[in-house]
Amino acid sequence: MRVRVGVNGYGTIGRRVAWAVSLQDDMELVGVVKTRPDYAARQAMASGIRVYVPTQKELSAFEAAGLEAAGTLEDLLGKVDIIVDATPDGVGASYAPVYSKAGIKAIFQGGEEPNVAEVSFNAMCNYDEAQNRRSARVVSCNTTGLLRGICSLNERLGVRSVRAFLVRRGADMHEVRRGPINSIVLSPPTVPSHHGPDVKTVLPWLDIVTSAVTVPTTLMHVHYVNMRLRSRATREDVLEALRSSRRILVVSTKYTGATSTAHLIDAARWHRPRGDIPELVVFEESIHVEGDEVIYTQAVHQESIVVPENVDAIRALTGLASKERSIEVTDSSLGLGSLPGLF
Amino acid sequence: MRVRVGVNGYGTIGRRVAWAVSLQDDMELVGVVKTRPDYAARQAMASGIRVYVPTQKELSAFEAAGLEAAGTLEDLLGKVDIIVDATPDGVGASYAPVYSKAGIKAIFQGGEEPNVAEVSFNAMCNYDEAQNRRSARVVSCNTTGLLRGICSLNERLGVRSVRAFLVRRGADMHEVRRGPINSIVLSPPTVPSHHGPDVKTVLPWLDIVTSAVTVPTTLMHVHYVNMRLRSRATREDVLEALRSSRRILVVSTKYTGATSTAHLIDAARWHRPRGDIPELVVFEESIHVEGDEVIYTQAVHQESIVVPENVDAIRALTGLASKERSIEVTDSSLGLGSLPGLF
Repeated sequence: MRVRVGVNGYGTIGRRVAWAVSLQDDMELVGVVKTRPDYAARQAMASGIRVYVPTQKELSAFEAAGLEAAGTLEDLLGKVDIIVDATPDGVGASYAPVYSKAGIKAIFQGGEEPNVAEVSFNAMCNYDEAQNRRSARVVSCNTTGLLRGICSLNERLGVRSVRAFLVRRGADMHEVRRGPINSIVLSPPTVPSHHGPDVKTVLPWLDIVTSAVTVPTTLMHVHYVNMRLRSRATREDVLEALRSSRRILVVSTKYTGATSTAHLIDAARWHRPRGDIPELVVFEESIHVEGDEVIYTQAVHQESIVVPENVDAIRALTGLASKERSIEVTDSSLGLGSLPGLF
Repeated sequence: MRVRVGVNGYGTIGRRVAWAVSLQDDMELVGVVKTRPDYAARQAMASGIRVYVPTQKELSAFEAAGLEAAGTLEDLLGKVDIIVDATPDGVGASYAPVYSKAGIKAIFQGGEEPNVAEVSFNAMCNYDEAQNRRSARVVSCNTTGLLRGICSLNERLGVRSVRAFLVRRGADMHEVRRGPINSIVLSPPTVPSHHGPDVKTVLPWLDIVTSAVTVPTTLMHVHYVNMRLRSRATREDVLEALRSSRRILVVSTKYTGATSTAHLIDAARWHRPRGDIPELVVFEESIHVEGDEVIYTQAVHQESIVVPENVDAIRALTGLASKERSIEVTDSSLGLGSLPGLF
């Protein structure tokens, strides 16, 4: 059985999820929904993807641009088993009743409030909680990055509390109207930032407080993580836990010369489509352990880290595969787990 | 006959030229020379490229990093017919006598002074002047970009003079120590900038004056070009000349939504290795023609625009192929000429 998948919204995340879905043997990408007839719409069509529009209204804009849309969102919803909503932050909630009325399952992104779906989702942390639900919300890129490290260490060493400081990228590459371009912005100026509570939608038992700033870059986020374990551990224990975990790349500056998000993306451009790094990157030499305290610095590629999570969420909601099987298939199909030159 | 090629220097340009050479049926990439055992060295080795070091001195650094170098530059020079020098600006000149002594042909980059080689080179403008010479200098990215447009229009419409203003990118992605990060720098504050005289190394008859600034971006350069033709022309004439020229992509904002270098690279990431755009990009709606005056705005991908030029320079110096044949083979092997979504 191949699950029929639609993707509503074709921006940073939607484009990548559609691409990833098209690589899964147990899924069929039926189509995507795009608002504007721009280069991304043209590229989708050039790749053989059927492009739908939200409403009849946008059909004429596509026609004027010489593009033939396959129909409207309503048409698409009639042909799929599940929809991945990748519309802009907050817009997904307005579509939730539409998906529900169409009788199909739905996956939302982390820009929505948690109550948009039955469960917030991270494959490594709580895949099983999403099994056969009607809807799930894949938590945001920053939350996904935090959860990868936390669940990896929690599984092997036990995590008691987390304090994290997030240095967020200002915009994605193509978002030329977003800033900042010359400031470090407290985002938000209050504590906690929404990331801590968002982590708790998946790990409600965790003591976590996050703070965040936004800086002028488009490449990746960087997080400082300070963690208390349930008992003492060695640096080797921590390193081994992170290294043996899926979707985490431990990158040694000593052996690679990589000291920045720029080096990571520059390296990824040679071996990954679009230079994407869906794995969490932990800088090896930044790992510091004292007793039960663990400190490390990690980098999160905001454009792609949630892509494998969305693929797994599709399998969880539709009962296609177990957690281990889904993660294995997803990672293999996307070429995750090794990145020549870095890991 | 396959020409045996070495590449000395494995940074932005060297990595890409080595990659491009490895795609040519009439060339064999014998090896590259790399100074540091960093991620780029590891990636080269992972791709099966033999990595040499400049001198015995660097061998131990590679050994300490667990990497086995194939030998030194001297060893490599004994195995090749031609070397592409892609060392940092000004360093190539110090190697010129070394290449000469080894009895091999050499290609230098635009960061060297013109007298480093027998001829300055641009495939479209003066391929034949480099045929069977001992050495050539591929002009810089900005000069290459200017020349593409100028030679395209000169061939079809006749160009009398050019005034251009260059908005230069501050650094390449991985150059994390270069700026500016918050200034528009006159680079240089005097007129002409070196680009005008550099264009004249290829087109000595041209009346050209260039000025330039540098801005905080890593993606691409952008040029404002103001040109006088030898006679009046229509906008359609100019558009047709640019559109029918190889290695120029005329991108319509109206049909693609692309209004920035960010949109160009974002689109290229989906259909080109590393998101490279070796073609000159001319923004269609920026083309303005009044009588004999032509104005347009173009974008230059500094990391890749000289890559096809280096490949053609190898063929010109070694007499492997005619101009038309070489350009055709190079463009075909690199997938140039169309970019889904944009052109």
